[in-house]
Amino acid sequence: MNMEADRAPLYAKVETSLAAEIVKGTLARGSQLLPEDRLIERFGVSRITIRKAIENLVARGLVEIRRGKGTFVTEPKIRQDLTELSGFVEDMIALGRNPTARLLDKRPVPASDTVAAHLGVAVGTQVYRIERVRLADGVAMSFDETYLPLDIGEKIVSNDLEAEPIFSLLENKYGLPLVEAEYQLEAITADERVAQALEIASGSPIFLIERTSYCEGPTPIDYEKLYYRGDLIKFTTRLSRRPRQAPR
Amino acid sequence: MNMEADRAPLYAKVETSLAAEIVKGTLARGSQLLPEDRLIERFGVSRITIRKAIENLVARGLVEIRRGKGTFVTEPKIRQDLTELSGFVEDMIALGRNPTARLLDKRPVPASDTVAAHLGVAVGTQVYRIERVRLADGVAMSFDETYLPLDIGEKIVSNDLEAEPIFSLLENKYGLPLVEAEYQLEAITADERVAQALEIASGSPIFLIERTSYCEGPTPIDYEKLYYRGDLIKFTTRLSRRPRQAPR
Repeated sequence: MNMEADRAPLYAKVETSLAAEIVKGTLARGSQLLPEDRLIERFGVSRITIRKAIENLVARGLVEIRRGKGTFVTEPKIRQDLTELSGFVEDMIALGRNPTARLLDKRPVPASDTVAAHLGVAVGTQVYRIERVRLADGVAMSFDETYLPLDIGEKIVSNDLEAEPIFSLLENKYGLPLVEAEYQLEAITADERVAQALEIASGSPIFLIERTSYCEGPTPIDYEKLYYRGDLIKFTTRLSRRPRQAPR
Repeated sequence: MNMEADRAPLYAKVETSLAAEIVKGTLARGSQLLPEDRLIERFGVSRITIRKAIENLVARGLVEIRRGKGTFVTEPKIRQDLTELSGFVEDMIALGRNPTARLLDKRPVPASDTVAAHLGVAVGTQVYRIERVRLADGVAMSFDETYLPLDIGEKIVSNDLEAEPIFSLLENKYGLPLVEAEYQLEAITADERVAQALEIASGSPIFLIERTSYCEGPTPIDYEKLYYRGDLIKFTTRLSRRPRQAPR
């Protein structure tokens, strides 16, 4: 690397060089940066320059300083709680991210076996399907297929689905407060269709979350297939041990 | 196939032949069986024989009849509840499967950053690592790395770890009842090491579950990395909506 190549300050060149290595993966997520002395040697710059560069990488969220341990490339996965029923927009706001949505399609379709079973309707019944990509800070995180009973779907799609979350429309505009949901989680690899929607390579790891949501009463109101990028998200929860039986 | 080869009834031979194709994967999970007329032709038997064979395959859970669609090879994923802290053996017994284990390795190792953070010890502290493959009905389901504090690990490894579950040893032999655990779930693809342990292809979809278990008190007693085959398992849970705030 030629430090005299252009007029950017030295710390900015060090910063750019390290940032590029992190983004490319040459410097792996979670790995430790070289100690300060080795960075000084490697880049041929002063300690103050290295410190300024690291400071900027910290500010950009690319590295973190662990007291007494050194400087590490940050882990990029979003940690999302899997402890209560919540929508994408709520989740991202809770995480300090900016949620947006891209509407790909909305149309009535006949319910497949799976959709029919989850919505509690007969196979072939017309239901509304909405396809969206959900983004956090401009990055596609999830490809969502939402299936709604036809009458509810017709109301929902009359809204701007790039601006309004479906959960919020159901609850606040149409008086259908959600109560709970069944979740099924699978680890799969992206097929062509999912890969294209998420702008990732086919074969990339994906969380497939099937979620069937209920209002009061036994009839499901919303069945979703959510394809989350496995490289960008992890789910966390805390589970208790079943109380032990009294010793005999 | 020679139907006169032995004395089993014809339907049993058809049943055995189709079951073998399903188990070997020649007939893929989720795929449709040939229509009745084609099966009659293929096996050279009567309609009633084919029907009896299919009936038995349905009873064995290998195929399912979808009304108006045909007969399909069932989807094999095990549905495992993610609602309370439980061990592999407990889970498999609850699901009617026969759990076994293969011990790959057990030895003290210095705690890496990650292991140290999860067990609440200093980096480099000696901890015990146990590596096992867990099987259900003879099929490798999960590759488990278990990390234990050194003193507990030394006790645990003095047992037959192919016969005794670690949870049961901790709780019943060493008086360390588990209370709760933190879970982190990721969707990843299998690297060489995990693929080899599970006898699957590199790049296959995998659930990585990191689980840190606690007894009473704040000190973790067990940190595990569980690599579950994504093609064989799905996790299910049921989550409630956060109570709504009173309308203003």
